[in-house]
Amino acid sequence: MSIDYTVISTRVRLARNISGYPFPSKLKDETKAKEIVRKVNTAVSKLDSFNLYFMNNISESSAISLKEKYLISNDLIANHNYGAVLINKAEDISIMINEEDHIRSQCFMRGLNLKEAYSRISEVDDKLSNSLTYAFDKDLGYLTACPTNLGTALRASVMLFLPALSQKNYMTEIIREVSRLGLTVRGIYGEGSDADGYMYQISNEVTLGVSEEKILSIVEDAVNKIVVLENKTRKEINLADPIGMKDITKRSFGILTNCAKISSKEFLQHIANVKLGISLGYIKLKEPMVLDNLIVAVRPANINILSGKDLIAVERDIYRAEYVKEILTKNII
Amino acid sequence: MSIDYTVISTRVRLARNISGYPFPSKLKDETKAKEIVRKVNTAVSKLDSFNLYFMNNISESSAISLKEKYLISNDLIANHNYGAVLINKAEDISIMINEEDHIRSQCFMRGLNLKEAYSRISEVDDKLSNSLTYAFDKDLGYLTACPTNLGTALRASVMLFLPALSQKNYMTEIIREVSRLGLTVRGIYGEGSDADGYMYQISNEVTLGVSEEKILSIVEDAVNKIVVLENKTRKEINLADPIGMKDITKRSFGILTNCAKISSKEFLQHIANVKLGISLGYIKLKEPMVLDNLIVAVRPANINILSGKDLIAVERDIYRAEYVKEILTKNII
Repeated sequence: MSIDYTVISTRVRLARNISGYPFPSKLKDETKAKEIVRKVNTAVSKLDSFNLYFMNNISESSAISLKEKYLISNDLIANHNYGAVLINKAEDISIMINEEDHIRSQCFMRGLNLKEAYSRISEVDDKLSNSLTYAFDKDLGYLTACPTNLGTALRASVMLFLPALSQKNYMTEIIREVSRLGLTVRGIYGEGSDADGYMYQISNEVTLGVSEEKILSIVEDAVNKIVVLENKTRKEINLADPIGMKDITKRSFGILTNCAKISSKEFLQHIANVKLGISLGYIKLKEPMVLDNLIVAVRPANINILSGKDLIAVERDIYRAEYVKEILTKNII
Repeated sequence: MSIDYTVISTRVRLARNISGYPFPSKLKDETKAKEIVRKVNTAVSKLDSFNLYFMNNISESSAISLKEKYLISNDLIANHNYGAVLINKAEDISIMINEEDHIRSQCFMRGLNLKEAYSRISEVDDKLSNSLTYAFDKDLGYLTACPTNLGTALRASVMLFLPALSQKNYMTEIIREVSRLGLTVRGIYGEGSDADGYMYQISNEVTLGVSEEKILSIVEDAVNKIVVLENKTRKEINLADPIGMKDITKRSFGILTNCAKISSKEFLQHIANVKLGISLGYIKLKEPMVLDNLIVAVRPANINILSGKDLIAVERDIYRAEYVKEILTKNII
């Protein structure tokens, strides 16, 4: 099997609100906010074991770490008075409470798994709806704080690794093309550059007047087209200068397995090159799939969790270098 | 034993001219030029086995390779009509004929070995003088084409690796200081920058009115002082930022053991960092002394000799990368 890393992960998110309560932005009453948390938690307790975290009860570092693992959003961190989150053991399902909506449940999976991720989060949603009365309108569908989420309130996202399309400056055109399909593409840190390790998120913009199944299939079709284009472009880039590509990708591997300190940003640039080098056959690893885990593991707050210490930036860069070296070195064939 | 690489090599050179013949620059008569070659060759044939190369009879690539190994000079290459060179098997003694002077004999040794190199080349010179009548004046000493070589006609050079003194911009002051002692310091490619891999050559300027022993001891004393200063400065640089030094030196090692192509210039920068990294204890090699051989081996013409092919620049960069990787990788502890 060739590993191209093009599709990193899938996320399907549902927004729900509980009937009879103001949306979180209007919810100034602590008692009511806590009531919502309690109700959701009670409903969830009938499901597999979830852990409940109150945003005003965990450290900033822990909160950022959850964000780095895609389990919570910046908005939830900002709403640290009333916000909470339920996370399952496998850390692939999270239910944010009192974020923009009362409930934002999501399922996160490796690879392109839109239908399965949707099916898993629907199951959670169905069980929640047994205990909770959702704000629902027969014409508008699920009611949400922001009108852009009305209707299905479904956001299906796929994270992609697109080094070749980025380097050849094809992304602007791709973003324009997919927007015609009601989709949007963003860099995972908003910029969409090498600073993001060439990672992009493609997701549906439109939630109203289209079925859940249709949303999933539009996203999936677009992803499949982009994947074909990315892999074709990689081959072209490689064919134009194979030694150059081998050189760039292997140098990055050499730096990652030897450096004594490395920032998040520089790490992302090199790990992107290493992934590209593996996909082109220049680098071989025993377990190539460790790389996407590594990207998450060495984010700043996660480094603090890994080290068990509250490190300052310079210390994190040293710890990150040691950890990256350890993981890569033991995976050298 | 700590390896600091500070002293790379020693070279002692004697200039001699044969009485009754014009200096090479004035020597337009081919018969006479050939006579000189024959006379020197005959004199040498009484010594250990030497190979004779006529400059107009070897390829440009072979000529440059000899220069890259410090066995001949640019001036000899330029004088390809009448020039020749005798080189011993070990390639540590060479006798250039019809360079600036009729005879330029030199002994090349690893490390700081001025007395031994002088003794070995004197032995050669003594034996040559049994068969040849040198141009000699009882007041001026040995007569040479350029007046700066008159007298002893001895040039004692030591090649030094001075990364810390270079990086701290101390070289200008050192050059000024040693010039007061009648010595000169040059970058090995004339520039004296990182493009030279921080390698410098210190040698005597003055050859007249001072004994051979005195010349050797002035050079040796200056070298010893510079070595102490370099090693002290390395410790200071390292103490100021040990992680930074470890990072820089190990990254260079990572690049050299992974890159798919590398130019001479970039190679020199990284190998200088690797040597620095070994001297500071950040990098360990089974046989650290391979590095100075490697520097000579991967110069452009030597790469052609190594590969057995007449490679173009891009191909040499690829071959160099492979060769460097091979040598370094098998020396990793």
